[in-house]
Amino acid sequence: MHKVPVGVLGASGYAGRELCGLIARHPKLELAFASANEQRGQHARIGPLEITYVATEDAPLGNAEIVFTALPHGASAKWVGNARSTGARVVDLSSDFRPGAGESATNAEYGLTELMRENIPGAEIVANPGCYPTAVLLAIAPLLKEGWVTPGATINVSAASGVTGAGYAARPDLLYAEVAEDFRAYAVGNEHRHLAEMQAVTNELGGRNNDILFTPHLLPVARGILATITVPIEQHTDDPSLLWKDCYSGEPFIEIADAPPSLRDVVRRNVVRLSVTKAAHVRKPTLIIISAIDNLMKGAAGQALQNANILLGLSEQAGLPA
Amino acid sequence: MHKVPVGVLGASGYAGRELCGLIARHPKLELAFASANEQRGQHARIGPLEITYVATEDAPLGNAEIVFTALPHGASAKWVGNARSTGARVVDLSSDFRPGAGESATNAEYGLTELMRENIPGAEIVANPGCYPTAVLLAIAPLLKEGWVTPGATINVSAASGVTGAGYAARPDLLYAEVAEDFRAYAVGNEHRHLAEMQAVTNELGGRNNDILFTPHLLPVARGILATITVPIEQHTDDPSLLWKDCYSGEPFIEIADAPPSLRDVVRRNVVRLSVTKAAHVRKPTLIIISAIDNLMKGAAGQALQNANILLGLSEQAGLPA
Amino acid sequence: MHKVPVGVLGASGYAGRELCGLIARHPKLELAFASANEQRGQHARIGPLEITYVATEDAPLGNAEIVFTALPHGASAKWVGNARSTGARVVDLSSDFRPGAGESATNAEYGLTELMRENIPGAEIVANPGCYPTAVLLAIAPLLKEGWVTPGATINVSAASGVTGAGYAARPDLLYAEVAEDFRAYAVGNEHRHLAEMQAVTNELGGRNNDILFTPHLLPVARGILATITVPIEQHTDDPSLLWKDCYSGEPFIEIADAPPSLRDVVRRNVVRLSVTKAAHVRKPTLIIISAIDNLMKGAAGQALQNANILLGLSEQAGLPA
Amino acid sequence: MHKVPVGVLGASGYAGRELCGLIARHPKLELAFASANEQRGQHARIGPLEITYVATEDAPLGNAEIVFTALPHGASAKWVGNARSTGARVVDLSSDFRPGAGESATNAEYGLTELMRENIPGAEIVANPGCYPTAVLLAIAPLLKEGWVTPGATINVSAASGVTGAGYAARPDLLYAEVAEDFRAYAVGNEHRHLAEMQAVTNELGGRNNDILFTPHLLPVARGILATITVPIEQHTDDPSLLWKDCYSGEPFIEIADAPPSLRDVVRRNVVRLSVTKAAHVRKPTLIIISAIDNLMKGAAGQALQNANILLGLSEQAGLPA
Repeated sequence: MHKVPVGVLGASGYAGRELCGLIARHPKLELAFASANEQRGQHARIGPLEITYVATEDAPLGNAEIVFTALPHGASAKWVGNARSTGARVVDLSSDFRPGAGESATNAEYGLTELMRENIPGAEIVANPGCYPTAVLLAIAPLLKEGWVTPGATINVSAASGVTGAGYAARPDLLYAEVAEDFRAYAVGNEHRHLAEMQAVTNELGGRNNDILFTPHLLPVARGILATITVPIEQHTDDPSLLWKDCYSGEPFIEIADAPPSLRDVVRRNVVRLSVTKAAHVRKPTLIIISAIDNLMKGAAGQALQNANILLGLSEQAGLPA
Repeated sequence: MHKVPVGVLGASGYAGRELCGLIARHPKLELAFASANEQRGQHARIGPLEITYVATEDAPLGNAEIVFTALPHGASAKWVGNARSTGARVVDLSSDFRPGAGESATNAEYGLTELMRENIPGAEIVANPGCYPTAVLLAIAPLLKEGWVTPGATINVSAASGVTGAGYAARPDLLYAEVAEDFRAYAVGNEHRHLAEMQAVTNELGGRNNDILFTPHLLPVARGILATITVPIEQHTDDPSLLWKDCYSGEPFIEIADAPPSLRDVVRRNVVRLSVTKAAHVRKPTLIIISAIDNLMKGAAGQALQNANILLGLSEQAGLPA
Repeated sequence: MHKVPVGVLGASGYAGRELCGLIARHPKLELAFASANEQRGQHARIGPLEITYVATEDAPLGNAEIVFTALPHGASAKWVGNARSTGARVVDLSSDFRPGAGESATNAEYGLTELMRENIPGAEIVANPGCYPTAVLLAIAPLLKEGWVTPGATINVSAASGVTGAGYAARPDLLYAEVAEDFRAYAVGNEHRHLAEMQAVTNELGGRNNDILFTPHLLPVARGILATITVPIEQHTDDPSLLWKDCYSGEPFIEIADAPPSLRDVVRRNVVRLSVTKAAHVRKPTLIIISAIDNLMKGAAGQALQNANILLGLSEQAGLPA
Repeated sequence: MHKVPVGVLGASGYAGRELCGLIARHPKLELAFASANEQRGQHARIGPLEITYVATEDAPLGNAEIVFTALPHGASAKWVGNARSTGARVVDLSSDFRPGAGESATNAEYGLTELMRENIPGAEIVANPGCYPTAVLLAIAPLLKEGWVTPGATINVSAASGVTGAGYAARPDLLYAEVAEDFRAYAVGNEHRHLAEMQAVTNELGGRNNDILFTPHLLPVARGILATITVPIEQHTDDPSLLWKDCYSGEPFIEIADAPPSLRDVVRRNVVRLSVTKAAHVRKPTLIIISAIDNLMKGAAGQALQNANILLGLSEQAGLPA
């Protein structure tokens, strides 16, 4: 059976390795190359697959129908261009072409799949969403689209991520003895680089002067993001979860749960799992949405593959663990 | 040197053991008894001290000048009364006599020490604050007292606690294999039993129709609470942290930090460590306060001992790790 | 496509749930029932499968071609008999019918698959090996069969297991706050209940008065076993690993590694991964074998399914993650 | 009250910071300087103390009566000499002057305090023992001194350490996401650099051709070492623990426990905690000793301070948490 060759630039980081592992098990794809500058020439075992890293500049871009770029933010845009010039289509896991970022490209589409599915098939470049924006935007999109959010109200997001969200970087503050048994906020003051992406898409989806106030935290876990989102709404309905169930009906990768999700519900799966609860004991009608994803799956490699499946006309679920 | 005899009812739980350890190292106190019904007759080594548990009903209450009750909520009130009838003064770590709770007693004072210090010396019963309320109320009190909070605004609290906050209970959901590498919200919907205490004291401290919206989370760590609090205020000042530095000037157990605190800054210490940051990119002036405590120390046993020191006319810092 | 119905007794423990998850994804099997007395009537989501537990006594044993018993040791033998009386063949994950155990049955075969493969197809009952014995026996079998071990020498095994090895039991010593950041030996003094199984099979495989001295430890991890085994041998060869490579040539679930394996090499995979190293700086020729497995996969549910595949004449690898 | 000035070279690593924290709380010592080349000029908060690092070459060695060197192995010897030339006495936490190391000095004494206490007072340099050797040698010394070990027998040591044992080094293999939920052996093949120290002291204490076979492991915990030691002995006695109780009678920092110790028994304490158990089910009389220490306390900073107390004629327990 013919398999479609795809390549990964930046394959030694956490997202890159996750992606290679998914490709290795994908029924219709094969890995044409995996690049990693510092590990060039080294071997890595990724699940059932043994790979040898090539230098990024030696990657045979022309051999791939799809090139995934999992390079650092800022370094990616150039390689997206190089890959495009060979005719490959690109799924870019960096922030370089996302809404709110500096770069823009007329041929790039934002790949928050469930919300922008119709834009993907014709895209030359898919800007794969950030991990936090994936968790947050899929959670609040139904409210925004239906106009439920109180105009001018602030949407409060307190989120926590496992350490793989910070990438495979030998930073002293990410050492085991510094992270275990600890918990801390970072980018405090609404200064996280994902804010612009979240705010831009919020506006686009129907926000009515709704500012996002976002505080991320570092969890002593390897993988997973949990976002706790409070949204003032104009008025309550009997069962607010019906809005999400309706909006996401038939979506294989979105789960509307009765009980608040926890990380272990989603780790190693390409899903967003959500719960919606009315806040008691407050005067302003407010919903509390808990949204959980695996930052490396639905928040990165899984969603990238989901988008690639669409680009190639394959089943959107091919090779993805639900 | 004469030492003051004190006793602990409910000494086998996490807070009770922490308290016995502090008493064992305290320069002016000695442990008269430690009760634990299920472990009656058993020995426990707590730091340098070897103790033998007695049944709670066999505890020689009359031998203690201060009785600490670390019994389950609901079970404590009766034993507070028993201890009082022997003439002992009581520091009650349960919620039974706290603001917002069902019980009330004219002779009970709320022991949030830094805010209610003048009420403690004459108290017969000190209702020791809950762990979450300690972290939250000390963080927002300066804002409330100065009238900075926007009237009618909701104060959003997203907090996370280590598992000892749930007590030493053999619940399957608290097993290592269920908690490690996980993170979850609980009491979602503003339904946590600490809410009433926080809301009542918020109102008392100067809240102007400010509802608390509180979502706690369970962290895969043994000890520590971190609360991320967003507060809409009427207008910004140049350096908001000056309000806290001024309000808590000279307090040995309150630290106003430049950088957001993390759990490891406070674990095993009887302190609250706070940071205050202005939220960027939002239209409504908003402060973000990060507040960290050790739930077993400043959130339970440490603050209880701090209150006992006051009751006994000792240095408030005696026997407490800063 | 017709699928073979199989049932699981004791499906709410860690091994039972793992097994249900494997069955749910197996291409040729379907789950006929899953029993759990305490959770009878409750639902559980296991990967893509939603199951409802029945009481063990209500399990329709006759509907299954294979019954897996994952009941507690001692309680299993009776249900093995009940299942047999309906004509089902049984894979018993308890120790009741293993070598060295009190029970014996002429129609039970020990299911250490790679060593006893030829006995499995005709078995009515397969006694699935213990987790520690699987890690240890597959590691030392080549030495024993070839007669390399010094006669009369003690084989020293220091092993460590994740907490799921202790089962899904609400024991206080298995709470997160008691296990995290700790490490301890247990059953010290060569008193572990798996010793008899290891010793009996060691003797059977060719041990020449070689006693096993086994000290297990509890690791602060959810899953995985690592055994560090030192074996005095009569004389060294150039590359001792060749013995294992030769002995296990073609085995899909045994990996002979150049570098010592770690838990993350094997977790969630049905493999044993081994390294063999000569000990330097000692006068007696000695080999150090490091053996790693996932206690819930190759150490329990995975190996059970491997044996069931053989019983049913399926590919031994069907439904098993390598 | 006059305090004795002491200095720390290499104060930014885990052992150096632990040592500064102990000095800060010590009743008779004060910190004259703390050096750290890469962090020169930076501030650090260590418990109640705020310190500013100086470059090692700027450290005012002449201001200290005792200089602690916590520099990397190999780099320490030169600075020991520099400190000596100012007249300071030195406690060297590196391996440079330990038994079995390349360096030697007629004026250096090995500081395994409980065994070599009489040599310390007159020493100019104290070579502070390694962490693993401390745990192992204090455990087996009574057997060696009494001649109980079978001549020619191998002493098997399987030990596990928390990650701070590897130092504060930004190595990718020590990142949280690489260490958590993992366990691995290292230096497999009896190749650890602590072996020479253990073997040399074993011989000196009375070993009769007893080789040490040592396999260390990396634990997913921050601190602590647990060593599981099996020793063939000539014959059993009724209660072997009496030998240790007798040998270490009156030692404040050695605990002979009835039950096997775990890390949490010793973490943050300057003790060795030991258990001794006869091995059942083996023909050769064998003892199993479990030895637990905190690698940063009794295994490094604590023992260094214990030695410094002796050098200064202070109480050996001053400033040390038992």
